[in-house]
Amino acid sequence: MAVTIYDVAREANVSMATVSRVVNDNQNVKPSTRKKVLECIERLGYRPNAVARGLASKKTTTIGVIVPDISNSFYAELSRGIADVATMYEYNIILSNSDKRADREVELLVDHFGKQVDGLIFMSDSISEEARKEMSIASVPVVLAGTLDQQSQFATVNIDYEEAAYEAVKLLASNGHKRIIFVTGTLTKDINRECKKVGYERALKDAGIELDDELVFEIDNTYDSAYESWKQIRTFSDRPTAIFAGNDDIAVGLLNGIRDDGLLVPDDFEIICFEHSNITRIVRPQLTTVAVPLYDLGAVAMRLLTKLMSDEEVEEHKVILPFRFEKRDSVK
Amino acid sequence: MAVTIYDVAREANVSMATVSRVVNDNQNVKPSTRKKVLECIERLGYRPNAVARGLASKKTTTIGVIVPDISNSFYAELSRGIADVATMYEYNIILSNSDKRADREVELLVDHFGKQVDGLIFMSDSISEEARKEMSIASVPVVLAGTLDQQSQFATVNIDYEEAAYEAVKLLASNGHKRIIFVTGTLTKDINRECKKVGYERALKDAGIELDDELVFEIDNTYDSAYESWKQIRTFSDRPTAIFAGNDDIAVGLLNGIRDDGLLVPDDFEIICFEHSNITRIVRPQLTTVAVPLYDLGAVAMRLLTKLMSDEEVEEHKVILPFRFEKRDSVK
Repeated sequence: MAVTIYDVAREANVSMATVSRVVNDNQNVKPSTRKKVLECIERLGYRPNAVARGLASKKTTTIGVIVPDISNSFYAELSRGIADVATMYEYNIILSNSDKRADREVELLVDHFGKQVDGLIFMSDSISEEARKEMSIASVPVVLAGTLDQQSQFATVNIDYEEAAYEAVKLLASNGHKRIIFVTGTLTKDINRECKKVGYERALKDAGIELDDELVFEIDNTYDSAYESWKQIRTFSDRPTAIFAGNDDIAVGLLNGIRDDGLLVPDDFEIICFEHSNITRIVRPQLTTVAVPLYDLGAVAMRLLTKLMSDEEVEEHKVILPFRFEKRDSVK
Repeated sequence: MAVTIYDVAREANVSMATVSRVVNDNQNVKPSTRKKVLECIERLGYRPNAVARGLASKKTTTIGVIVPDISNSFYAELSRGIADVATMYEYNIILSNSDKRADREVELLVDHFGKQVDGLIFMSDSISEEARKEMSIASVPVVLAGTLDQQSQFATVNIDYEEAAYEAVKLLASNGHKRIIFVTGTLTKDINRECKKVGYERALKDAGIELDDELVFEIDNTYDSAYESWKQIRTFSDRPTAIFAGNDDIAVGLLNGIRDDGLLVPDDFEIICFEHSNITRIVRPQLTTVAVPLYDLGAVAMRLLTKLMSDEEVEEHKVILPFRFEKRDSVK
């Protein structure tokens, strides 16, 4: 069996993103890491260009990528993973922003399929009935990246968001907290409602803590909204002492709200969040997080799409990638 | 003459990005701003879809976008501006990442032109001779966004980086600083070498301060490199007291290095930088910056390309957009 980029990443104990950077001569890799990766490539006999060479006779073709907003760091990183694997297999990408508007998504789907793309990667908060219909009748394969399919109809690539949320909140509960706030982006997003919130509630139940709807704050998914929401949180008479934030922008907004008020993290509040960018390392204290392998979600989704497009056998249409915890300074 | 998105933005005193968000029903706009923009749209009689309607009979066509790295927030924001205007004019975007490698850039140019795109937007640190040759012989228009053309051969959209750097350093000099450090990403990037460094030196000269090459630090364009570079800066016996940073990642790396060492900003060091993301508002103290209108650079570049593609008259091939200063807390 051919050695893959996954094998190299596992062997070198680095992310696929790092292996890809080394292979592509990108300079943003520590010399020691580069050396380790090159040694693993050598030892395993990985040939990054074998794929492209095998496809030399193939006419370059095109896939569609529908993304909510390419200027959002979450989707920018996912898209980079998609693009790198697409390049490796000699596919071009037609990229479109949907702003998560259901009507625009359908318009884009019709447009992409009408343009006879060879396959499509779709990202959204939630799949509308109309979008599902368009993707169902399409004659080419579709893969969802970082996006749930409640009806298990399409191929998907995700992490186990519920388990990650569960472990995050369990950590806070095990530190003795009884009043743990959950601050989340819109609950119309499947991952927030069906995974992160469910994991939060399960961890509280397992810790014998009663659920309290007042402790769930649904806000806009931005730093500014989170900063504003702190003004509401501080008015609790029975003040919460820990926060589980749905993402890093929200966590940083709360962190700044707390600190600008003269309170301390982690002494007055412990915080844990999902990490989508390096902002969690830049703020002080650095935030303890669930690290989501965004680049890998994109890369694996695109690899899965290449298999589906060439009718290769696919064992698992619902791919779940591992996540990891980054213990830093916002939790004791 | 038709009312344009520029007219609305100017009238409402907001960015084109904001007008576009209002028009596209994006929720990330303050209600008061939305109201103001809608009033201006009404008053001026702006018809955002008139363009698309006028083009209803036109077959949707495709442009190429070559970007160093879509997961970099600078290029993600530029690309969003390009994409929104492309959508408005019913162009699809084929997006490719070059990682700024000259060989890859040429490969992508050949590939895009071979695919018969109707036009191309190119972004890079510097235009290699080979890339220039490919773009010169192309039969379709090319626009450079956020990228200099030393030979004034292609259409470009930029801000006056040199003037911005000059004003930033002049501000530091006028606060009494004599030893002002310039920390920059690679000087092989035209904008760093020909604009920001030149503006820095001109401001020092005008303030009667002697140039000192030891005060120019060329580092990798990352938070981590900047954080590391602080360890070198702190060893100066005659310690500098102000920093001009080429971008926000560099500024934040230095800020954290300084603060983790127990020194204070702005008391021990004043800092000013170019702003590419909202991280400058998230850190404490908030950073005084030159705000670069990235979205607008992309949007205007794409609008210029549509004109060139349809042989409309273009008055100025070298477009310079205004920048503004954001005075915050890292400068007294």
